[in-house]
Amino acid sequence: MINFRFITNIIGKLLLVESAFLMICIIVALIYGENDMMAFTYSTAITLAAGSLMAFTVKVKDRVLAKKDGYFIVTTTWVMFTIFGCLPFLLGGTIPSIPDAIFETMSGFTTTGSSVVNDIEALPHATLFWRSLTQWMGGMGIIVLLLAILPGLGIEGRDLFVAEVPGPTHDKFTATFTSTARRMWYLYISLTVAQTLLLLLGKMDLFDAICHSFTTMATGGYSTKQDSLAYWNSAYIQYVVIIFMFIAGTNFGLMYIAIHGKIKKLFRDEEFKLYFFIILIASAMIACVLYFKGYDDLELSIREALFQVVSILTTTGFATADYLLWPPLLGVIIFVLLFIGACAGSTSGGLKCIRLNLLFKNSFIEMKRIIHPNAIINVKYNGKSIHPNIMTGVMGFFILYIFIFGISSVIMSLFTEDIATACSAVITSMSNVGPGFGEIGPMSNFAHLNDFAKIFLSILMMVGRLEVFTVLVLFSRAFWKK
Amino acid sequence: MINFRFITNIIGKLLLVESAFLMICIIVALIYGENDMMAFTYSTAITLAAGSLMAFTVKVKDRVLAKKDGYFIVTTTWVMFTIFGCLPFLLGGTIPSIPDAIFETMSGFTTTGSSVVNDIEALPHATLFWRSLTQWMGGMGIIVLLLAILPGLGIEGRDLFVAEVPGPTHDKFTATFTSTARRMWYLYISLTVAQTLLLLLGKMDLFDAICHSFTTMATGGYSTKQDSLAYWNSAYIQYVVIIFMFIAGTNFGLMYIAIHGKIKKLFRDEEFKLYFFIILIASAMIACVLYFKGYDDLELSIREALFQVVSILTTTGFATADYLLWPPLLGVIIFVLLFIGACAGSTSGGLKCIRLNLLFKNSFIEMKRIIHPNAIINVKYNGKSIHPNIMTGVMGFFILYIFIFGISSVIMSLFTEDIATACSAVITSMSNVGPGFGEIGPMSNFAHLNDFAKIFLSILMMVGRLEVFTVLVLFSRAFWKK
Repeated sequence: MINFRFITNIIGKLLLVESAFLMICIIVALIYGENDMMAFTYSTAITLAAGSLMAFTVKVKDRVLAKKDGYFIVTTTWVMFTIFGCLPFLLGGTIPSIPDAIFETMSGFTTTGSSVVNDIEALPHATLFWRSLTQWMGGMGIIVLLLAILPGLGIEGRDLFVAEVPGPTHDKFTATFTSTARRMWYLYISLTVAQTLLLLLGKMDLFDAICHSFTTMATGGYSTKQDSLAYWNSAYIQYVVIIFMFIAGTNFGLMYIAIHGKIKKLFRDEEFKLYFFIILIASAMIACVLYFKGYDDLELSIREALFQVVSILTTTGFATADYLLWPPLLGVIIFVLLFIGACAGSTSGGLKCIRLNLLFKNSFIEMKRIIHPNAIINVKYNGKSIHPNIMTGVMGFFILYIFIFGISSVIMSLFTEDIATACSAVITSMSNVGPGFGEIGPMSNFAHLNDFAKIFLSILMMVGRLEVFTVLVLFSRAFWKK
Repeated sequence: MINFRFITNIIGKLLLVESAFLMICIIVALIYGENDMMAFTYSTAITLAAGSLMAFTVKVKDRVLAKKDGYFIVTTTWVMFTIFGCLPFLLGGTIPSIPDAIFETMSGFTTTGSSVVNDIEALPHATLFWRSLTQWMGGMGIIVLLLAILPGLGIEGRDLFVAEVPGPTHDKFTATFTSTARRMWYLYISLTVAQTLLLLLGKMDLFDAICHSFTTMATGGYSTKQDSLAYWNSAYIQYVVIIFMFIAGTNFGLMYIAIHGKIKKLFRDEEFKLYFFIILIASAMIACVLYFKGYDDLELSIREALFQVVSILTTTGFATADYLLWPPLLGVIIFVLLFIGACAGSTSGGLKCIRLNLLFKNSFIEMKRIIHPNAIINVKYNGKSIHPNIMTGVMGFFILYIFIFGISSVIMSLFTEDIATACSAVITSMSNVGPGFGEIGPMSNFAHLNDFAKIFLSILMMVGRLEVFTVLVLFSRAFWKK
């Protein structure tokens, strides 16, 4: 059976972490002296109280977690964080409707970046800061954060780690999970600081620089401006953001190794090469079309193509141009990119390049298998043979992803005027990108959708962020059988 | 190495069969005394000459075919049949452009039913008859036809059969392939005759009745009228066509068993149940929306829903209504149906219900596998355990299908004004359905596309009809290695 007492205890501790982050926003509110200070004070108090109640009053009989508990705890944590994360929006009156607040918060924690706010610049600074902070926390993972800061938790981190940071293989992480989690967070923080400094050099003010660094490193995409990154008409700022989106989409384990002198390993990694290659090809195609179809400015064509491609592929969702106005060829390229995502072990969402790599190779090998039906031919990745079970898992994941996309598109089309909006809303939510097509393009938002659609998309964001199985397994009969 | 001499010999014999079918059209042209008689006479003569040359002048050293030869022969046959099948259109001047004629003929043989003819009713009768006949031949399969009528060919039919009538399993066909092929053709001919008689009872004239029976049983969709089945404003005729489309989408092996007294086997078959269920659910949803959104006539709502759903799911492509005018929800349902297809071993295209059934079950079992990682749990179908290799093949097929769809959509969007047209043109061609969305809806055609797009879609039709691997394997390195 599920160890509910211990799980309540752990989630309580996690809520205490959330209340600490909420407290930071009180400071921001104090600095700017705006009217959302009380909202953050109440939110902090409520979260603190709930967390303390769960962490300190429930008696834990045995501190053992089974694999099943791992899935349960991760999904529940994301739901709880979203519920308490709504409070500042609801109490402050900045987003008064509950489905809207849930959508905005889930979109934050899952680093999707879709918004229901019609006038972002009218929000108080602390509220804007909280939006960015939810993405920053969600980017590296709430559980990974816990593993990093609470090593004395007395739990075996592996199952939690695998449930929250899924992916076909975890061979990049050889050390214990606590030290891995801590290393990843150090790297994450350092990169965030570096980006903030570089943005300051580009004359972005400190507040915006911090907020955008949070949401870039998380591949989140929330901006403090209605026009997103297009607000700063500065090539320098846009290139900085492009570079950091690209970094955030790279496998953090691999990046850690690269920083420690083994840079060749990075460029020999098949997933990284594919990631790089997709960006190159897609940007080149788009830049060409833009250049010859009216931009006439080569640098601008390249920059806009690169920015949009990296933003969508890394599932960030920042915008400097409206791809809805581009020719249909470019629209289809962007639509395909919505599915792909960047590297496993990064903060990005989507299918991930490693899976694409494995699936492509498997298709070619299937031809060989047809010609030599009795030979056993395994897919190789980075020179190593991939076990058929892992390959079956990857294939199963892809198929389930496409099925959920198809069925959800049918459901979403109940609430939208056109097919493009329905399908793109589903995939942009599942892949945690942000913008879509039709009524939800990069220059519009999700405010006009009805409440059911918003809740439905919020669920899809979580299903996508936790890579489907972690959530869906809770609804299987096998899970609840003794 | 590929046994080119023997293959040339076989394809020669197949061309003789094609010339016999072309000869039938001369008779039709004689009856109606129209101006396409010379075109068919020349076409027959050219095909006869080419066939004779190949069949009787090439000396065959050894009459042995390897597995590889099977794939080579099937793909080449379809290409050759299309090349010679173009002749009546080109020589008669009814479709003067070569890419147009290739598109129309490939669309015929693959039973897709997409057309480039702007005024169908202006075509002479023999040309209309030839269009329907190509679908009828392609429906059951050109190779299967050869196996049925030329048992003395001296070849082991299995590999050819598997290459042309693919599908996850062939356990329905236990006898020798010659007798199986013959049985299937008897059944096919009987059903075609039955439908013709029933259509005659509905006051359709003999010529139209024969043509529509050809294209219904083949799940092809070519009509002799510009308005397709909507031309006959007769509920009786439409219900007859619905029933026969449904029959044509059923596994012929299973139908044969059912006719011979074991009807329970049909209703216990998992694929058949899923096929039936999809039609029921999709039709019910569409009928409800149509009824409450303005039709007000219950029978008409049900009939239009049922007709369109059965037509698209069986990949026939007849139309009695324009689904582009329906609400977006219904559009998405139709779009999803474009992928699915009816049963394996039928004349329909698409992914087929059996694969959908296996993939769905595999996804659920994947949850079990996550919870019990050491247990070996196989997917069961009709009570029997499916070998993991077959399951991997099915998954690989689905993934390759989606990949080809994605990449081809990007290519097609070079030639179209909007994304819906590009994506739907690709999937309707791959699944051999016919109509799509945007500029190629059920009430329009493919005439306005450019030549490259037409050739590209023709290739996709063939890739889809021969279920991807049969064609693609010819382009793999492993195939040509000694």
